[in-house]
Amino acid sequence: MEEQQVRAVMEEAMEIGRRQIPHGAVATYIPELGKARKDALGLCIALPDGTLYKAGDTNIRFTIQSISKVISLCKALELRGAEEVFVHVGMEPSGEAFNSIVELDLQANRPFNPMINSGAIAVESTIIDYVSFEDMLAYSQLLCDDPGITLNRQVYHSEMNSCDRNRAIAYLLKSKEIITANVDNSIELYTKLCSLNVTAESLANFALLLANGGIRPNTGERLLAEDTVRTVLSIMLTCGMYDGSGRFAVEVGVPTKSGVGGGLMASVYGKCGIGIFGPSLDKKGNCIAGCEMMKQLSSKLGLHLF
Amino acid sequence: MEEQQVRAVMEEAMEIGRRQIPHGAVATYIPELGKARKDALGLCIALPDGTLYKAGDTNIRFTIQSISKVISLCKALELRGAEEVFVHVGMEPSGEAFNSIVELDLQANRPFNPMINSGAIAVESTIIDYVSFEDMLAYSQLLCDDPGITLNRQVYHSEMNSCDRNRAIAYLLKSKEIITANVDNSIELYTKLCSLNVTAESLANFALLLANGGIRPNTGERLLAEDTVRTVLSIMLTCGMYDGSGRFAVEVGVPTKSGVGGGLMASVYGKCGIGIFGPSLDKKGNCIAGCEMMKQLSSKLGLHLF
Amino acid sequence: MEEQQVRAVMEEAMEIGRRQIPHGAVATYIPELGKARKDALGLCIALPDGTLYKAGDTNIRFTIQSISKVISLCKALELRGAEEVFVHVGMEPSGEAFNSIVELDLQANRPFNPMINSGAIAVESTIIDYVSFEDMLAYSQLLCDDPGITLNRQVYHSEMNSCDRNRAIAYLLKSKEIITANVDNSIELYTKLCSLNVTAESLANFALLLANGGIRPNTGERLLAEDTVRTVLSIMLTCGMYDGSGRFAVEVGVPTKSGVGGGLMASVYGKCGIGIFGPSLDKKGNCIAGCEMMKQLSSKLGLHLF
Amino acid sequence: MEEQQVRAVMEEAMEIGRRQIPHGAVATYIPELGKARKDALGLCIALPDGTLYKAGDTNIRFTIQSISKVISLCKALELRGAEEVFVHVGMEPSGEAFNSIVELDLQANRPFNPMINSGAIAVESTIIDYVSFEDMLAYSQLLCDDPGITLNRQVYHSEMNSCDRNRAIAYLLKSKEIITANVDNSIELYTKLCSLNVTAESLANFALLLANGGIRPNTGERLLAEDTVRTVLSIMLTCGMYDGSGRFAVEVGVPTKSGVGGGLMASVYGKCGIGIFGPSLDKKGNCIAGCEMMKQLSSKLGLHLF
Repeated sequence: MEEQQVRAVMEEAMEIGRRQIPHGAVATYIPELGKARKDALGLCIALPDGTLYKAGDTNIRFTIQSISKVISLCKALELRGAEEVFVHVGMEPSGEAFNSIVELDLQANRPFNPMINSGAIAVESTIIDYVSFEDMLAYSQLLCDDPGITLNRQVYHSEMNSCDRNRAIAYLLKSKEIITANVDNSIELYTKLCSLNVTAESLANFALLLANGGIRPNTGERLLAEDTVRTVLSIMLTCGMYDGSGRFAVEVGVPTKSGVGGGLMASVYGKCGIGIFGPSLDKKGNCIAGCEMMKQLSSKLGLHLF
Repeated sequence: MEEQQVRAVMEEAMEIGRRQIPHGAVATYIPELGKARKDALGLCIALPDGTLYKAGDTNIRFTIQSISKVISLCKALELRGAEEVFVHVGMEPSGEAFNSIVELDLQANRPFNPMINSGAIAVESTIIDYVSFEDMLAYSQLLCDDPGITLNRQVYHSEMNSCDRNRAIAYLLKSKEIITANVDNSIELYTKLCSLNVTAESLANFALLLANGGIRPNTGERLLAEDTVRTVLSIMLTCGMYDGSGRFAVEVGVPTKSGVGGGLMASVYGKCGIGIFGPSLDKKGNCIAGCEMMKQLSSKLGLHLF
Repeated sequence: MEEQQVRAVMEEAMEIGRRQIPHGAVATYIPELGKARKDALGLCIALPDGTLYKAGDTNIRFTIQSISKVISLCKALELRGAEEVFVHVGMEPSGEAFNSIVELDLQANRPFNPMINSGAIAVESTIIDYVSFEDMLAYSQLLCDDPGITLNRQVYHSEMNSCDRNRAIAYLLKSKEIITANVDNSIELYTKLCSLNVTAESLANFALLLANGGIRPNTGERLLAEDTVRTVLSIMLTCGMYDGSGRFAVEVGVPTKSGVGGGLMASVYGKCGIGIFGPSLDKKGNCIAGCEMMKQLSSKLGLHLF
Repeated sequence: MEEQQVRAVMEEAMEIGRRQIPHGAVATYIPELGKARKDALGLCIALPDGTLYKAGDTNIRFTIQSISKVISLCKALELRGAEEVFVHVGMEPSGEAFNSIVELDLQANRPFNPMINSGAIAVESTIIDYVSFEDMLAYSQLLCDDPGITLNRQVYHSEMNSCDRNRAIAYLLKSKEIITANVDNSIELYTKLCSLNVTAESLANFALLLANGGIRPNTGERLLAEDTVRTVLSIMLTCGMYDGSGRFAVEVGVPTKSGVGGGLMASVYGKCGIGIFGPSLDKKGNCIAGCEMMKQLSSKLGLHLF
């Protein structure tokens, strides 16, 4: 990827993204999220050689939200192994929204996949006896190569007042003996991990780590096993964009995960990591600018898997 | 109803009931319930003139369980009025098991009816700010004409350790803003009411009160408004036996409610109240002897509505 | 029931009904039904002593539609017996709309009850090898005491062009081996029976027959077995008004069945039969005037079961 | 890929496959399929340079079944364009079995994706007015580079006697106005395309065509547009193995489609096409040997996307 070409494509993508912003809305289901600057937009592309292309608001901090599901999954796979983790959660896309209870109760003996709330709570239950929040914070800083990540206490407390549905999910998992962890502790950890402050650059770094097969490029250090990376990227590809994952796989063809804080991370295997920040969301809760930008980047830089 | 005929039919029904006992099983989802004497069986018929026909174990105490849903509904209708109550719960049979979450989440903006767990929790939420557990205990004693009703603490504590699914239901109701009550308080009151110790005779008295249009026969005192009785009996008829309610309406044709403690109360409008105790349950959680006994009583004593 | 009182209550009910008409709409899913006179309204009450109270348009002909499900059920119970019929269909209210496929496919090994389309098609499959359409026409004339009933060919042909969903249901039943009949023949018979021309008076006669336990009052002839009547009335009570059956049982308390042609028949056990015609429908497809009229009649004439 | 290494890995994979055969069963839902030789097994790998590696029964003919969904999708995308096609069908994995009706009726205004029966029928409806069966047969011969493909009339007639569920699906699609085509014609074409006789070699050729971006390697002729290939491979990856697609994407990481005739085609982008034949199926209806063989090939030849 030639620098000049990349910069030109990024400019174009930023332009396309900005035009999308008015068509979306900032998440308001918790008051703190509603305070985000709707027109913020940042794009960061990290290459294996250490190059970092940036455009716009790449250093504004925002909460990671659902993208923390990828970090929890990494930790669980590394710590407990795939065999143990996938006793408690499946690997199948569900065709349902992120917070669905129906399918869980109706036909599943475990949540469909780790990228929906019920699945993330189940994944977390496999590690909650082994790690503290502080451990997970440090792990997030490590994977994102960003020691500046902290807990956003305003968002955390705000979320804890709006998590009845997640509590319902956790108690249902417990009644079905899919998890055995204490529900209060689980919800606390889950919500804290969603409330970590990251930047578009943090996400690009994490995405690059996955794109590079688990090895930090600048140090050559292996942070994640090859199997972990393979599993995580495959699941991001089939399940990362909720009930829009299939369309995204067709149109963009890059493993991607979004969060309602406005973050989006995309891992172009063997090539680069992409981090986007834009708090104006589409109806499915994905960064509205980011989705269009990813289409553009995929098409112009040839990032599609096929 | 001639005494001799009634006694003969009761004997026959007891015989039929006893033969069913081995085909069922005592509830074991909470350890305390599992301690019940499986072969216990009692039948009590209360007439408006004060006559009380008894056979078998009519004075053994057992926990009321789901039959408490009828008491809560009475209280809510009397205290808050039908209009307010039916904002929070519907009146429709659901075709689902007692503890279904699916339909609630999928298509309902409120639980289907007051006889399933979600509906009972919603009903209770309309009165929880107005009554204490002690009030409800006294109310239960009044409606059942049984001052001996007490809280079974063993069962209560045992149930509190197995109520994750009910907590899930309550949090889901809260997340959908169907209830606003504190979930811990709701589950505590709900579980306490399920853990009241009654007898077959208590249930016959309560059933008679409803059969008599809300007036206690021996005193002439009106304890429940006519409208309350009409609503409660109609809902018992269409929803009282969970996903077996329709068949029961065809085969027995009497408003009836059962509980997993082994209790069953049936209200033959204008004629009598029937209370049955038999902890051996069928697969739907109904007293296995009681269901067959009700068929026999209905057929031999002409109790069917049609 | 005093003549003067009945006539006064009927007048009042007609007034109440008329005020409802503008709030509903004539069925338009098939063009022929859309031609009905929206403001037509008729009420007929038939007493066991032969008295026939009439008000408004009691002799206008309209298609019986779903009320034919009651006639098919009577025939099937009489001809094949309850045991055989209820192998193919259940007796449970479903909490679903009349034309639901979901529950059928998801969890049922047979349709929930004979009053929804899938159940009616299953009921019909038990008799289709034993009766012709002509037999069923004659049977309808007999039960309704109305030799003037004929097939409305315009409606029949119009319906045959709009029955893809019923065909889907029938093929699904066949694939699940709930029915073995030829689908084309089944749909033809089903649709013809829905297209019979009746009047409010016909329906009152049929309702009276059921209210009188299966014996035609004026001749003393038994046309339906007691068991058939008991089963049919119980199912009308719990399932007759689709997903509004529970509320209707509470508010009116009379076994009732409606059809989208605007007909409504209600059977007050031991007392009378009621037939109503009013093609302006509410959102659930019930005669909008008729539902309010039934509430009024029930309340003023004391028709509620409880 | 070195010849010697490939041949060694293939031998090993065949060995692994053979050990799976006894754990599966030949499809018996239609009598003709039940006649397949359960222990047949063939593996063919086609490389862009024209090399064809073969092991076992690579030239036995068997019916293509669901793999025809890929051919129909190619034709529809080429003939009508993605925009038109995806009005009638979605791109989302469904988490449901191949012949689900529930989700379709419950929440979808179109089938979830082209790889389930409802979706394939919808795809087909976009081309049925433009192509004959003969056209589609010729198109299949072209894409598979196999002029020997013919209609298996025994299987076709056998399937036509067991397609009530597909008829139900088609009528439901029609009632929801997702398709407008004549149902009989649709089912006939759909079933004929499922009944085409292919070989493991045909499937390897077709897979290679896709892996090569739509260009036939030996002639350099473009048979499919790049966009078509991208869309088809993405959908095979997320939806190709029914409700096991997610796990397959994690464990194998290659776009793959299976059929109950025992066929399996896998397209390794930029590398090769793989065709497998083995009529012993696992419980989800996939070739039981083929799934394990693909895991082995993916792992030993490094075929995983990530």
